Amino acid sequence: MRIYPECIVCLFRLALRTSELVTADERLQREILKQLAGEIAELPEAAVPIELGRRIQELVHELTGVADPYREIKRRYNDLALGLYPRLQELVTAADDPLLMAIRLAIAGNVIDFAVGTEFDLGQAVAESLEWELSLSDYEPFRERLAAANEILYLGDNAGEIVFDKLLVEELLRRGKRVTYVVRGGPAINDATLEDAHYVGLDKAVEVITPGVALPGVMLRYASPEFIARFRAADLVISKGQGNFEGLSDEPGPLLFLLKAKCTPIAHELGVEPGALVLRVALAFELGRIG
Amino acid sequence: MRIYPECIVCLFRLALRTSELVTADERLQREILKQLAGEIAELPEAAVPIELGRRIQELVHELTGVADPYREIKRRYNDLALGLYPRLQELVTAADDPLLMAIRLAIAGNVIDFAVGTEFDLGQAVAESLEWELSLSDYEPFRERLAAANEILYLGDNAGEIVFDKLLVEELLRRGKRVTYVVRGGPAINDATLEDAHYVGLDKAVEVITPGVALPGVMLRYASPEFIARFRAADLVISKGQGNFEGLSDEPGPLLFLLKAKCTPIAHELGVEPGALVLRVALAFELGRIG
Repeated sequence: MRIYPECIVCLFRLALRTSELVTADERLQREILKQLAGEIAELPEAAVPIELGRRIQELVHELTGVADPYREIKRRYNDLALGLYPRLQELVTAADDPLLMAIRLAIAGNVIDFAVGTEFDLGQAVAESLEWELSLSDYEPFRERLAAANEILYLGDNAGEIVFDKLLVEELLRRGKRVTYVVRGGPAINDATLEDAHYVGLDKAVEVITPGVALPGVMLRYASPEFIARFRAADLVISKGQGNFEGLSDEPGPLLFLLKAKCTPIAHELGVEPGALVLRVALAFELGRIG
Repeated sequence: MRIYPECIVCLFRLALRTSELVTADERLQREILKQLAGEIAELPEAAVPIELGRRIQELVHELTGVADPYREIKRRYNDLALGLYPRLQELVTAADDPLLMAIRLAIAGNVIDFAVGTEFDLGQAVAESLEWELSLSDYEPFRERLAAANEILYLGDNAGEIVFDKLLVEELLRRGKRVTYVVRGGPAINDATLEDAHYVGLDKAVEVITPGVALPGVMLRYASPEFIARFRAADLVISKGQGNFEGLSDEPGPLLFLLKAKCTPIAHELGVEPGALVLRVALAFELGRIG
């Protein structure tokens, strides 16, 4: 996905928030923003927002020495989500359609995103997620594709959210699928890394791998050859969140995008209203969406 | 006032909004933001936010040919305010303290600011302004200073707001003061210019001058020698809004700042909470505030 003009404003907001997390020194904060401005001034036409997201992380690291500004926030959200986990498991078990419930909750988990929004009541978000009106035009194509799939690559997004993903991963395992979970190759905003996968115990359930790069979204251009081979070999790729969508929106699939469209550019790309909860199947031969 | 890190984000937001007003061409919008980024990358330590505000206006003009992107918005807000004007006049006439009422309404008019906020209900804003709890510690010093003053320089801010200023100008004239009203020397965001002063009939009541520059706030560094002479000769300068505060916050006075502190940096500079309605007298020998 290309960088919309609105993305530029958002990137500066992200850089400000990230720099405020690591230093109260206004000169340092301003220097980070000035160096980001230098990058934006030279922005190539084909740049993708997450590439600049990574650059922000690098600038903050270079200028303040802090490699992982969101570390405490990620821990806090993992803890919050883990506290909810038994209740979420019951919801899936008791549901008429456990797969759909696990999908709903996986999207609910995507509401946790410090890269776009601010703090919120997690329990409230879950309660609301159960009442969402999902137009299910893409659920059936997804179920069909899933029935035929064996190898599933699940691309995680944020810390905290990873606990919600665990429910869907477990539901897939119950259906006899082989699932590999993907986290970022290093600190990238509040995105889940190997540390988070370990912290929430996901690595006990499935293999956890990375694309080999600390980018806040999967982009095959930057991924290791090993990762690309795994991506191509998968029968189905489940992609969580905006960052992965930004990096993969031009890939042919088979992909299932699960996300909340938190900003106008993403909503525009998907053809939905901002705020829409999206379950979109992108296959080489068919496209649809649930908004 | 210096440029806070937060101001940088705000300037990009302003550039985006301004470019969206003049073109739907995303490439042009992005080019405007990229060129602003080039300026921010080289930002001098001593820069003031309104200097970048002017640069945005220039970039939009250079790249799209549109010199006055907010022209229609300014007209619309002048019309809205003119529609309220007879009712506002009655409020002043009927008030126990017409001067204080005129000041309250002048601050109410400052809520109109497309450079910071979005659209709003003007009538609602006026109704609320009458209920504000104003701590009046600066009203008495202002009244004393006013009693001794003859020549008053009144620095206007936005279109629309200029109609509210007219009420305070008229109240000052009733008290036998000589008032000169100052507008921008050319298009500067949604700020009032000579065109607006003429449109709302302010030029029939008092002399209207400009500092000779299209900057969204008065800065003596950029003002004409004639304007600086008028500024120095005034017994009292009434300064409306954030832009004028940004440009004059380091001047010794005698100045009366009337504004709503719409953002954190301005609130921080004034020592008030964001959203506070400020009547602050800045004299060489005394400082206080009403928040």
